[in-house]
Amino acid sequence: MTHHFRTESDSLGKKEVPLNAYYGIQTLRAQENFPITGYKLNEALIYSIAAVKKAAALANRDIHQLPADISRAIVQSTDEILNGDHHDQFLVDPIQGGAGTSLNMNANEVIANRALEIMGKKKGDYESVNPNNHVNMSQSTNDVFPTTMHLAISQVMSQLEDVMKEMAATFKDKADEFDHIVKVGRTHLQDAVPIRLGQEFESYHRMVKRDLKRIERTRENFYEVNMGATAVGTGLNADPTYTKLVVEHLSSISGLPLESAENLVDATQNTDAYTELSSALKNTMTNLSKIANDLRLMASGPKNGLCEILLPARQPGSSIMPGKVNPVMPEVINQIAFQVIGNDQTISMASEAGQLDLNVMEPVLIFNLLESMTVMKNGFQVFTDLCLKDIQANEAALKDHVEKSLGVITALSPHIGYEQSAKIAQEGIKTNKSIRELCKEYNILNPEDLEVILDTYEMTYPGIAGSHLKEKMTV
Amino acid sequence: MTHHFRTESDSLGKKEVPLNAYYGIQTLRAQENFPITGYKLNEALIYSIAAVKKAAALANRDIHQLPADISRAIVQSTDEILNGDHHDQFLVDPIQGGAGTSLNMNANEVIANRALEIMGKKKGDYESVNPNNHVNMSQSTNDVFPTTMHLAISQVMSQLEDVMKEMAATFKDKADEFDHIVKVGRTHLQDAVPIRLGQEFESYHRMVKRDLKRIERTRENFYEVNMGATAVGTGLNADPTYTKLVVEHLSSISGLPLESAENLVDATQNTDAYTELSSALKNTMTNLSKIANDLRLMASGPKNGLCEILLPARQPGSSIMPGKVNPVMPEVINQIAFQVIGNDQTISMASEAGQLDLNVMEPVLIFNLLESMTVMKNGFQVFTDLCLKDIQANEAALKDHVEKSLGVITALSPHIGYEQSAKIAQEGIKTNKSIRELCKEYNILNPEDLEVILDTYEMTYPGIAGSHLKEKMTV
Amino acid sequence: MTHHFRTESDSLGKKEVPLNAYYGIQTLRAQENFPITGYKLNEALIYSIAAVKKAAALANRDIHQLPADISRAIVQSTDEILNGDHHDQFLVDPIQGGAGTSLNMNANEVIANRALEIMGKKKGDYESVNPNNHVNMSQSTNDVFPTTMHLAISQVMSQLEDVMKEMAATFKDKADEFDHIVKVGRTHLQDAVPIRLGQEFESYHRMVKRDLKRIERTRENFYEVNMGATAVGTGLNADPTYTKLVVEHLSSISGLPLESAENLVDATQNTDAYTELSSALKNTMTNLSKIANDLRLMASGPKNGLCEILLPARQPGSSIMPGKVNPVMPEVINQIAFQVIGNDQTISMASEAGQLDLNVMEPVLIFNLLESMTVMKNGFQVFTDLCLKDIQANEAALKDHVEKSLGVITALSPHIGYEQSAKIAQEGIKTNKSIRELCKEYNILNPEDLEVILDTYEMTYPGIAGSHLKEKMTV
Amino acid sequence: MTHHFRTESDSLGKKEVPLNAYYGIQTLRAQENFPITGYKLNEALIYSIAAVKKAAALANRDIHQLPADISRAIVQSTDEILNGDHHDQFLVDPIQGGAGTSLNMNANEVIANRALEIMGKKKGDYESVNPNNHVNMSQSTNDVFPTTMHLAISQVMSQLEDVMKEMAATFKDKADEFDHIVKVGRTHLQDAVPIRLGQEFESYHRMVKRDLKRIERTRENFYEVNMGATAVGTGLNADPTYTKLVVEHLSSISGLPLESAENLVDATQNTDAYTELSSALKNTMTNLSKIANDLRLMASGPKNGLCEILLPARQPGSSIMPGKVNPVMPEVINQIAFQVIGNDQTISMASEAGQLDLNVMEPVLIFNLLESMTVMKNGFQVFTDLCLKDIQANEAALKDHVEKSLGVITALSPHIGYEQSAKIAQEGIKTNKSIRELCKEYNILNPEDLEVILDTYEMTYPGIAGSHLKEKMTV
Repeated sequence: MTHHFRTESDSLGKKEVPLNAYYGIQTLRAQENFPITGYKLNEALIYSIAAVKKAAALANRDIHQLPADISRAIVQSTDEILNGDHHDQFLVDPIQGGAGTSLNMNANEVIANRALEIMGKKKGDYESVNPNNHVNMSQSTNDVFPTTMHLAISQVMSQLEDVMKEMAATFKDKADEFDHIVKVGRTHLQDAVPIRLGQEFESYHRMVKRDLKRIERTRENFYEVNMGATAVGTGLNADPTYTKLVVEHLSSISGLPLESAENLVDATQNTDAYTELSSALKNTMTNLSKIANDLRLMASGPKNGLCEILLPARQPGSSIMPGKVNPVMPEVINQIAFQVIGNDQTISMASEAGQLDLNVMEPVLIFNLLESMTVMKNGFQVFTDLCLKDIQANEAALKDHVEKSLGVITALSPHIGYEQSAKIAQEGIKTNKSIRELCKEYNILNPEDLEVILDTYEMTYPGIAGSHLKEKMTV
Repeated sequence: MTHHFRTESDSLGKKEVPLNAYYGIQTLRAQENFPITGYKLNEALIYSIAAVKKAAALANRDIHQLPADISRAIVQSTDEILNGDHHDQFLVDPIQGGAGTSLNMNANEVIANRALEIMGKKKGDYESVNPNNHVNMSQSTNDVFPTTMHLAISQVMSQLEDVMKEMAATFKDKADEFDHIVKVGRTHLQDAVPIRLGQEFESYHRMVKRDLKRIERTRENFYEVNMGATAVGTGLNADPTYTKLVVEHLSSISGLPLESAENLVDATQNTDAYTELSSALKNTMTNLSKIANDLRLMASGPKNGLCEILLPARQPGSSIMPGKVNPVMPEVINQIAFQVIGNDQTISMASEAGQLDLNVMEPVLIFNLLESMTVMKNGFQVFTDLCLKDIQANEAALKDHVEKSLGVITALSPHIGYEQSAKIAQEGIKTNKSIRELCKEYNILNPEDLEVILDTYEMTYPGIAGSHLKEKMTV
Repeated sequence: MTHHFRTESDSLGKKEVPLNAYYGIQTLRAQENFPITGYKLNEALIYSIAAVKKAAALANRDIHQLPADISRAIVQSTDEILNGDHHDQFLVDPIQGGAGTSLNMNANEVIANRALEIMGKKKGDYESVNPNNHVNMSQSTNDVFPTTMHLAISQVMSQLEDVMKEMAATFKDKADEFDHIVKVGRTHLQDAVPIRLGQEFESYHRMVKRDLKRIERTRENFYEVNMGATAVGTGLNADPTYTKLVVEHLSSISGLPLESAENLVDATQNTDAYTELSSALKNTMTNLSKIANDLRLMASGPKNGLCEILLPARQPGSSIMPGKVNPVMPEVINQIAFQVIGNDQTISMASEAGQLDLNVMEPVLIFNLLESMTVMKNGFQVFTDLCLKDIQANEAALKDHVEKSLGVITALSPHIGYEQSAKIAQEGIKTNKSIRELCKEYNILNPEDLEVILDTYEMTYPGIAGSHLKEKMTV
Repeated sequence: MTHHFRTESDSLGKKEVPLNAYYGIQTLRAQENFPITGYKLNEALIYSIAAVKKAAALANRDIHQLPADISRAIVQSTDEILNGDHHDQFLVDPIQGGAGTSLNMNANEVIANRALEIMGKKKGDYESVNPNNHVNMSQSTNDVFPTTMHLAISQVMSQLEDVMKEMAATFKDKADEFDHIVKVGRTHLQDAVPIRLGQEFESYHRMVKRDLKRIERTRENFYEVNMGATAVGTGLNADPTYTKLVVEHLSSISGLPLESAENLVDATQNTDAYTELSSALKNTMTNLSKIANDLRLMASGPKNGLCEILLPARQPGSSIMPGKVNPVMPEVINQIAFQVIGNDQTISMASEAGQLDLNVMEPVLIFNLLESMTVMKNGFQVFTDLCLKDIQANEAALKDHVEKSLGVITALSPHIGYEQSAKIAQEGIKTNKSIRELCKEYNILNPEDLEVILDTYEMTYPGIAGSHLKEKMTV
């Protein structure tokens, strides 16, 4: 049934393309060469390359390189992709050789064939609208693909930032809610001096805000695009007026304040903008994993753990142990952290592997970068909504713990010295008596002064408790 | 339109489940909690968990814990899944909190509801067939999920091994084909003494064989399964006879020589079998990336590179530079290497994060492990078929290079000493004369002896060229 | 005061060498070029290269390439180094360019000059004994350095294995000591079904034994040496008889069962033996870090943690909090884990960066590999002696916890079903009543049967508690 | 000979300390507990902790907590350390448990004992000057150690920045020097369109400048110090006036614009300032490794490589191959890159492992961070001085290559279309004819126009070569 196919050819030979396909021979070659992950392309890449192709068609028209009717048909094609159509025609695997050439050619072919259709011509009639000569006019994969990556990153980054802002605000709300609650501080997982639960959540809040700032700081890197760089950044075959116009069109299409990169050679061959972002993501997840660990630790129990906070129950925790509820939301945050940290490793190696005038490892790089941002965005949203917002303090337990804690001896140390304090603490461990009891037993300070010094809430504020008493003490 | 839904409930409350769905309330909770990657589960996991559930249903029947009719219905359900049906009912995300509980419950629900249907009952009628009490009988996620992982790994590993054997054989074929071809050896990317192209490919062949051996060596780890361990490996609620039988049934279903793990506590809480495999995969890709780099380097050109080998052209290499062909297949191998090395990082961290009696990070661990094996398997297949098999040597260039090389001076060094040899080599660089010419110019050795010593083919075999001449030399 | 120096020259020019120095001009060049880490070379490398040079001098003498008197003097020089002398003459930095050439030349120079001295000649009189022509005869850095690495690794590995055996035995002792102690199992840091403390330590023991096995399995890789390979593995300038003899001499000197590598090209250019070992080290530390985390968790307290085990106090824990004692020994194990995992990353990248006929990144590779083994060996020794051997169980607390635990409800689940069990567990959380109390309150089972089923010690053995009761139950 | 020792005691018991030692019992305990790496502490840490202790002694005096005479003696002790004395008394290993407590106590003891000596008392007479009560007054390891790390980082960072500025300037000089030299651009290691060598070096220059900027941007993080935070950031036992004064004193001592951290709890428990810096270092080395790879590639040869640039010869390259010179300086840069990337992994994991109110993994974290900065600083200095400054272009080879290159066909593509251009290029590969020859042979364009279009220097500037000709062309 050869009538269901059209024959396309390129410099390497011929191939049968399904008649109704918008993609063409190069897409088929890519599909044959790179059946690697089986994943679909990240949607943001498809939208972004359509925007790039539209901008190029407009700029090429403006400088009278591209006939108006062809430009018009190309623009309509790209608009359809921007509206969500034809995405199923993007067949190439995220991990592909060729530095993105296959994705670029997939886009060129889909757009060319749809443009041909729009113009009333037959698909495959590349004399009329040619994937290379027309859709890719004044372009190279080496400017199209980096620019596409920049747009896709910018798009997903905005979503991620929004979610992170909400997460940070939630930590702040909890910090306020828990500000009055004294608890046992812990260093080395050992009881230390008192702290307020709100101080800990405030610390989480501040950490997330810094993470957000580090991510946001990379944003402007991605507003610099290298359209017009063509193959190696020198701009061969790209008219300088085109280069100026294509960026303007792309800004307008994307709504982003794009600029032409200061140095197109640099912008074409180097990938440190990506590693910088990936590092910011990794550092965020390093922080979030620490937070998730803290939450899981403080929520440990329900009977034989720290039992200091309660996480909202999200699902029965065990298929065998009835009534068990697990901290599944922080657990997923830990796993996202490991994923993103591993992805950062991949991205670093892909970046390091750039050679001379191009980094051909960009496909695996952008695949991992977008995956990192996507899983973070998704994970933070549910973590915030389904966990953080409903964390409760177990105030009774917290109060009980701080009462029993021996760390409060620290407040006595300025009054009675480190050595004697240590002896009392050690006796506390052995006898199970509280510091207060032991002080009374040994007549250390008078009861009123002791109350002042051993006020655990006051201990969470700076200063030497009972420093006004020091002169009159005779230990 | 509530009639399109059924209401299910669990210890946390109620949910509306689509009437035609085989999955149930727990799957919905998981879907709500973990919309993380958007990827589908690896198919091997779905097949494997169905096999596990089937084996359990048979073993529970054998020990008369599970009524025969329910067992029969469960077995039929699992057989359907093993035949490829109902996979669309597995909705849970690969990255999920809860250590695989969601995947286990997804399977329990799908199987229970399909069994109910088979038994002529209504979906959701869990009094009759219960996801926990019947499908999950004698089981815990903590034995079901590790066992499922072991089966899935075994399955994908077999495919990977087959592909690697073919790849190794192809390197061997090329080693034989190229055995006679002398070329310039290179160390530090600088010309060194001659070597044969076949020796280099033999070296690749041997490396891949070692990689294969390292992977195969981990195989038996995955034949040890922890069914019967239940929650923490102690076997609570699992009859020892069941434990014996379930492994036998599972061996028979899977065709794998499975055994009950020697120590079920150990097998339940520890994950070093996975990190060991991931390391073997990483080491493989470290090697393959080196090979890919070599091939790209030797194929560099076509005019201004080493130009020593020709890779088959797989696709036009550039959307802008006509006639350019790129080494896309080795490039994809490099990228797979970076992916797998990053995944290994994720897996190491997931493994390190195990706490006490369980590693709850298993979902991200198995997701990455199966991804690594899958992209390797897929990548090696196309690399072998579409690249390695058709590599050609550029014999003319190789011969020309070896003629020009100054590294051959090394063969003279035992005769005339290191210092004098160094001087001749340096003059060669300056004057662009060959070692042979310079030796003649300076009357170093007589022409016949020189020919013996400067035979580049002989230089690729051990020994001191012209050692028989040494006594008569008077340099 | 030029009389304090001697002038040496090489193909790049002249340099003043301190008169009393055994090293020479090349060592000075290396010192000038590579002032990178400031660390000293690992001692094992110095011993090993001396052994290699001794073996070569003997083999070259045997084949009558090296005059007997020179061989004798070289052998005496190397024996002195093997006795611990002249190590201060090894000035080159562990991280150096040149694939180990600098270390090799440092050794060649020290040995040559000391040999000259022994022969009654002046240092620097390289006509008589030449670093390249005599000490390095039949050798290349590219066989000397890998062989040296293999010997050094073998030496440190033996020490590491001894320490690991002792550590494993200590875990076993503790497993036996704690075998009778029931405790709360924990999954997801949440109370689960009972387990015995001895089972957990047995699990640690088994894990360490596997780690040891994985390390030992790599041992024979390092018994294959590539002496005779010379520059690229082809054996140019190395007489086959020499190649055979040098390995025999080296076996005898080192006491190791060395063999000539099956394929010298492969053995010269590839580094997967190192990555395989590094992976085994990494996997070990991933496991040990998990163990360290468990110990720190179980020892958390002293009042407000799990308080289940007591680690021996090794030092006052705080400069400010009197009486505080921290789990410093497991903490150092965690840090060693992070160090070794990071080193593995470095080693992987160094291995991946091999190009064509040599991997020039070997210096950073061996630096990290020896550092990993050294810190592990040192760390495990103190961890075993100063921590593991004296861990005590807090039996009172363990008993109390298991009494309070709600996880025991699991044993009832086969009798009363998952749903009802879940309800009881949840009421337990709310009311703070024990499962036993609640069962009595709700008349679930008769008291005798309940005692059988709720026997926590029995729960740590496989089986359905009270399965004999099932038939007579009427819940 | 007990008279050579003094006996010291702490809460865990007694120990014999060498009579002449300034360190004390806690240092001995640390030495016994942590014989891990055998490395010395980074000098910057010793200077920095001395500065911290001096500032604290002054501030404690100011608020009348510390008697003036003791303060004076402590200050004199610390001044001596700041002058380089007593560094041999710092015995503790860089990798240590206890979150830096051992280093802090080592400093407290050395300073206390030296202060005692200054005051005419006996070492060990801690009633008079006490390591905890006096030297550590108002402090905790948990503020002292982070502050010490911040100071040490600031110090080494300044040195690193200076070296990076010089390296960047050198790249700029080379960019200018090479600006006129046209060469073959290369993408995928395949010949592409022309580029100027100066453009490539300008690209390196810009990359290094960004790296520098990313490092510098982290600088102010380290000016925020947490002195006064004491154990968990709450400031217990630290008078707010002291907290203000200690930072002022420390600013004045260090010459750095230090400030009290905005939130002391956050500043005490979180470590993202370090991971951010480590990421900046890693990204720098990812870039530098790419540059080193490029240089090694372009310098490959001398006969059978790209031979486009000449690196200065730094040392004979081979112990066996006379006259060989290797790119040892870039090789060491690659190795530093692998080291720093591995260290970043260690640092990330150490950071992630923070728990609750403290990160106890700081010792391994700061060890790796300072090592990274140190090897970078050292490596960049020699790379710049001994390699970059003397790189030469091989202009003859570069010119020859660009003449032969087929990539110039790209300039014809806008005139004759992609397909026809591809055919010509392919014929060029087969026939070994130049594009210019083939165009003449096929009468493509007239000779004058062809010269304009095929001007390789012009091709390195943006624009469509010969676009003014387009209208008149009839291809």
